[in-house]
Order: sequence, then structure tokens, then C-alpha cells
Amino acid sequence: MNDIRVGIIGFGTVGSGLAQTLFEQRDRLRRKTGANIILSRVADINIEQLPEHFRDVTLTRDANDIFSDPDIDIVVELIGGIEPAKTFILKAIASGKHVVTANKALLSTHGREIFEAAVAKGVEVGFEASVGGGIPVIKALKEGLVANRIEAIQGIMNGTANYILTQMTDHGSAFADVLKDAQTMGFAEADPTYDVEGIDTAHKLAILMTIAYGLHVQLDDITVEGISSIRPIDIDFAREFGYRIKLLAISRNHGDHVEARVHPTMVPVDHMLASINGPFNAIQFTGDTVGDVLLYGQGAGMMPTGSAVAADVVDIGRDIIAGSINRVPALSYLPEFIGEPTITPMSRLNCPYYFRVTALDQPGVLSTISGIFGNHGISIKSVMQKGRQSNEPVHIVFRSHQASEEAVEKAITDIDALACCTDPTIKIRILDED
Amino acid sequence: MNDIRVGIIGFGTVGSGLAQTLFEQRDRLRRKTGANIILSRVADINIEQLPEHFRDVTLTRDANDIFSDPDIDIVVELIGGIEPAKTFILKAIASGKHVVTANKALLSTHGREIFEAAVAKGVEVGFEASVGGGIPVIKALKEGLVANRIEAIQGIMNGTANYILTQMTDHGSAFADVLKDAQTMGFAEADPTYDVEGIDTAHKLAILMTIAYGLHVQLDDITVEGISSIRPIDIDFAREFGYRIKLLAISRNHGDHVEARVHPTMVPVDHMLASINGPFNAIQFTGDTVGDVLLYGQGAGMMPTGSAVAADVVDIGRDIIAGSINRVPALSYLPEFIGEPTITPMSRLNCPYYFRVTALDQPGVLSTISGIFGNHGISIKSVMQKGRQSNEPVHIVFRSHQASEEAVEKAITDIDALACCTDPTIKIRILDED
Repeated sequence: MNDIRVGIIGFGTVGSGLAQTLFEQRDRLRRKTGANIILSRVADINIEQLPEHFRDVTLTRDANDIFSDPDIDIVVELIGGIEPAKTFILKAIASGKHVVTANKALLSTHGREIFEAAVAKGVEVGFEASVGGGIPVIKALKEGLVANRIEAIQGIMNGTANYILTQMTDHGSAFADVLKDAQTMGFAEADPTYDVEGIDTAHKLAILMTIAYGLHVQLDDITVEGISSIRPIDIDFAREFGYRIKLLAISRNHGDHVEARVHPTMVPVDHMLASINGPFNAIQFTGDTVGDVLLYGQGAGMMPTGSAVAADVVDIGRDIIAGSINRVPALSYLPEFIGEPTITPMSRLNCPYYFRVTALDQPGVLSTISGIFGNHGISIKSVMQKGRQSNEPVHIVFRSHQASEEAVEKAITDIDALACCTDPTIKIRILDED
Repeated sequence: MNDIRVGIIGFGTVGSGLAQTLFEQRDRLRRKTGANIILSRVADINIEQLPEHFRDVTLTRDANDIFSDPDIDIVVELIGGIEPAKTFILKAIASGKHVVTANKALLSTHGREIFEAAVAKGVEVGFEASVGGGIPVIKALKEGLVANRIEAIQGIMNGTANYILTQMTDHGSAFADVLKDAQTMGFAEADPTYDVEGIDTAHKLAILMTIAYGLHVQLDDITVEGISSIRPIDIDFAREFGYRIKLLAISRNHGDHVEARVHPTMVPVDHMLASINGPFNAIQFTGDTVGDVLLYGQGAGMMPTGSAVAADVVDIGRDIIAGSINRVPALSYLPEFIGEPTITPMSRLNCPYYFRVTALDQPGVLSTISGIFGNHGISIKSVMQKGRQSNEPVHIVFRSHQASEEAVEKAITDIDALACCTDPTIKIRILDED
């Protein structure tokens, strides 16, 4: 029987989840692959010893012990961040090891260098766990939807942000309060910046766009806005208009240019993405052949992420056994067919908008503001005003038809210059289902 | 460059969808596989000539022309039904051709013979399109979730039945009226038996269970009830209790036995499956490692199904090029590890129930019926009565806690024997989310 030997660098949450998965599923994997998938080494600088049932696994503090072990076929990098993860992955590749990683931050910034090194060396790089945790989105996109031009990607890709927005929606709580609770309960990191400011979501979108379109999309290509500025009042107005606010990654393929954006979005309540609550993820692909396909599940966590990493290990193991290395190109398209993206400038974006204007409740205010929208060619679909107090600021919310971001920015500048406007106008984009 | 040559048997809706997909996506597939995927022959007894842009494709009336063509690598069977599809597939295998099929009726009844023939001959059988149309459910289960013990399968797998239930729910229409409209609009077949009586759904569940558990599950193993007996009044009561009625395929893995059932089910409105409307499909797998994963999309139709068939063609094409035939076993587990299922008898099923009792509105009726439930150990959670007319039949609906199907059947027999009960009692199982 074939043996496939695995080394793990980084024995944190996901690393121990993977080890546990390989341990618990070893008989099942043998019955599916005809091979023994064996965890043989773990490198971690913080661990003194491994749990008892891993007594056959060698623990080391030095990742080089894994690269230099000729018996190891696959190196799994699970330390995260840019360095030393990047150096370790490049060393593993240089040592002729296949690599599996869940490191979206690294792949969305230095992925090109890593994938080129792997192709040159004739080894594989698996990264299913980098997007959508346990949900097999990468495999669906690369293989299940292979015969599709991908027209759009839309998804909820960060469980922490979605958990916070769900709590705010269900309980009317303020962002800061929910975040603090989430941190206490371990649903949010001590430094939540990547999650709540949309950066983690952008990492994932860059990876999906690269595979979907055959374009080297990087983090820098993506316009990112987080959820820390979302206020309960906007969630309430959204509800009255028939929307839920979600942090979405959105890309549309316009052929000669592609949209790449992450921002809070008002999603119609009857859209599948509106009903994704709590820490769950859901990613929707639109293909020209298949139409809309949506995949839903746990986007993070020890065991779900371990499931995805283990699937990559098995996939590579099968290629080792069958002698079919790089049977499916790592980035879906063959390297020579991957081009450079032209990103749609945000000023050219067209979608419906929600505006919350804060103005003194004086006669003529509504007409003045409406006039400014009209001057910029922005057609208003509905207006709502809450509270009425003479000479006190009130919220007036507007929902527009399709408008260009460029016109929207100009209109907001004009509105905020009005003497009656006491606070900056808030805009939230509305999901456009055309 | 490698050429992969494909022959299609059956140029109906899906066959022409596949041809169109291979034609439209040929450059994209070349950039992903490095190969030309070429449709070289079509066999169909009803077609006089192929559309103009397929001028390089040879049309034949005799499927044997495809089996005897030494250049053809993959035979795609898209005629459906048992014969002559089965004979054609076995002939294709005997001729050393790989096979792709969307034929769930055939695979769920004669799959074992087909897969054994393919293994013996060293060819592949792809069947992604047999379940969930364009949604890559088979690949997700076999590869993405490879490192999971599958604990449960739950899904909406028939678009026609779901369309009819959605229309009944949204418009309060009767089953027969919606069915007639659906037939007029082409959403339902002239003979809708397979779709509305749950047989098509059962075909698909048998295929998924076989792969999920490594057990040879066949159509006969599955308890099947359709939706033709569902009445608008049950849909209304369901709504008041906070449920939607869906035709679900349900399997739970109890280790030494597995549930296998298709029936109308009351799904809590906040469950993802409750929000799957119209002709869409959604299939949820519960894995011990990954938790719940749900895949959603179009479960039928020319192009979505073509997308899935094309994905199988590409998958097999990659194995031909890489020399890695049967790299992933057709049924997920290696043939020698696939066993015989022990199906949970329906009498042993435990779930919450909805009952609609039709009885004369006489004093003491409610207490008599409640007493019968109590006698059989069925604990009632809530009761609702609609309409009040002395000595006229009224509907009394009961919602139970977990109860055994065996007790339920006995209680219904006792209730229906009461002099005051004018019509047979209707029971609908409630989705149990434990």
C-alpha cells in the first residue's frame, strides 16, 4: 500500500484540527484512496509535546527538519501571515515538497511568486482552506464549474464580520458593543482589523478572482470598506426598505475589465445571501452555462478548515499515487494563459444606493437635497424621514435607482456643503441583481 | 496538443446543451487543460441534421457507430430511462470507452452492474449531472468532503416538485391547478409521476447515499411519498406553525443502519432549505469534520445540466492525458470497501409530526383525540382548530414532539376509527434539526 507522508508547520487551531482529522479519518481515507495518509512531523516553536495519540509523530521546533526529511511528500503551512510563512513555503517547494496552505494573506499578495516556483519545480500547491473554510469553493470553481465563463462572484466570506452584523440586526446593538462581546466569546480576534475592515474578505476575493478569470488579481486591486462605520439606524432603515446589510465581496466580469470590491451592501431580504446569518459563509458564482451556484457552510474554525486542508492533502496524495502531478493547474488556467487584470475604477461603478443625510428639519431641505441628486442625474426611488423636531438634525434617507459612483460622490460633496447638513452623508451600496 | 474526442448518444435538451457548451467553451477549456475537447459524433434517431456550427460533427442514427469509432475516448449517454441506455452504456464500456451519464433512473437501479463493468474494463463513469443538475454535488461529496464521515444528507432535489409547492405556498392554489399550469409552461412533464411522486428525488438520494456511505443503496431501499396529496390547507397550517412544506430527500447515518426517505416535510422557516424556492435545488451534507455544507443552484435545464456533463468530460479528459484513470473511485470508496446497506425501518423513525384530523365539531372530540395520542406515548406540542360549525366536520391540527412512526401509525388507526372522524387523518413529518 502507498504511504503519503505529511509534515505540518504550525500546530495552532487549524494545525491541530488537521492532525485530528487525519487521525480520525485514516481508515476512511484508506478505503477511499488505497493509501495511508500519515502525519509524520509537526514543526512548532510553541508546543512542548503533542497529544498522546500522536505518539508516532515527530515534533520539532525547526521547520527545516520537515524540508530535509526525504520521506515527507506534502508540507502543510498553517502559521499564517507573510513571514516566515512565505520563506517556509518557498523552501518546501525548493525541496521538492508539495505544499498545502490556508494562508490567504500570503497568497493574495505573494501568490504569483509561490505558484511560479511550484510550476518550475513540478510540485503542487493546494489552498482550498484559504477561502470559505470547509466549503469546497476552490474545487467547485476550478473543476465543477470548469466549463463556464464566470460572470460574477458575490459572497459573505468573513464569519466574524457576518456574526457582528447579524447580532446588530437581531438585537439593535451598536458595532462596538457587539465586537466587544464577540471578542469575549472568542468569535473575534483581539485585533479584529482584518475581519471588520474587510481586508480578510478582500484577500479571499483576490484568490477567487484569480482562479475565476485567469487574471493575477492581488489585494491592492480591490477596493475595501469595512463595517465599523455601520450604525444601528442604517440597519433599521435597511429593514424598512426590505434589505439586510451584509459585508459582501463582489466581482463582476465585464470582459475587458472586472469589478473588485468589498463593502457593506444592502441585500434584498429574499436573496439567499440575506439569510446567511451568524459566523457562516456563503459564496455565489454566476457562470454563463450553469447560472447561479451558491455554496454555504462554516467559513472558519478548527475542524471545518481541517476538512478543507485534508481534502487538499488527499487530492495531492492521489496525484502522487497516480503520477498525475499538476493534473489540474493550481490557478485553474495554465500559467501561460493567466493575464493581468484591468480593474473597473470605482467611479465607473453603477448600482442603486442608500443615502442617509443628517440635516436640520427646516422647510425646503428635502427639496434642496432632492434637487442636488437630480442635478447629478441620480434618480431617487424612495425617501423616508424619521423623527420631526424643528431645528434639530433629523435623518432623511434616500434610495436611488442605478447611479454612477462618480455622480454619487459629487452629489454627496454638494449635499454635505449645505448649511443645514450637520453630519457627513452616509452612503451604502445596494446589491444590484441585474 | 492532446485531443479528447467525445460522442453523444441522445441529442435532446441536455445533449444539445452539452454540444453548445463544448462549442462555446472550447477555447476556455483549452486554456485550462492544454487539450482540445472535440465533439466528434452524435447518435440520435430523431434528428435529421445538426445545427450549422456543428458541421465537423458526424450525425448517425446508430449508437454502434460511436462505440466502433476508435478515436472516441468518452461516450456521453443522454437518452435517459433504463433501455436502451443500459445496453448502450455497457457496450461503450466493453468497447473501452469512458462513460458520462446524467441517468439517475438507471444508476439507482442498475448502477452496480455498470460500475463493476467499468472497473473491470479500467474505464471511468462520470455522473455529476445525475444529481442537482449543474450544482457540483457529486464532486463536493467525493473530493471536497473526502475527510468526513457523512452524518446526514438533506435536500430539495426535484425542481418540478419544488416549483409546484412554491406556487401553492405563494398563491394558495391547489396541487392539480398548479401542476396543469406548470405543464403548460414546460416546467413539468406530460407524465409528471416521477417528479411529483418523489421517485426522481429517490433516484438521486440513492446515488448520494451510495457515495456518501460506501453502501450499495438502490431505489427500492428508499421510502417514497410524493406531494400530490398536499392540500393548500396544510400549507396554511404549516405557515401558522412557522414551517414551509418541501419535498425533501432525507438520510441520516446511524452507523449500523441508515435512514432513506423522500416525503413532504415541514421545514422551519429559518432553515436554509425553507428559502429554496421555485425550480431550484439545494443539497445539504452534514460531515463530522466540516459540519453542514449546503450547495444551491439550478437542478435541471439544458445549460446547467450541460455544465455538469461537460465538467465530467473534462475530468475524465484530464485523467486520460495524465494517465491517471480512476484516480478517484467512481463511487468514492474503492469497490472492495462498498457494502450492503441496512435501512432503518420507517417504523423506527423518530421525528416531530403534524397531524390534520377531520372530525365533527362535537363536545369532547379534542379530549378524545388527545387521549389517543397520549395512549400511544405521543406528546403534543400545540393544537389548532379552524372554523367552528356545530355537527359539521372541522380541521383540528396537532403538532407533536418527537414521536415514533410506529406509534403514530397506531394512533392514526385509532383516531380514524372514531365515529366523529369523517376523513382519514393526514400526517406530515417535521424536519428534526437535532
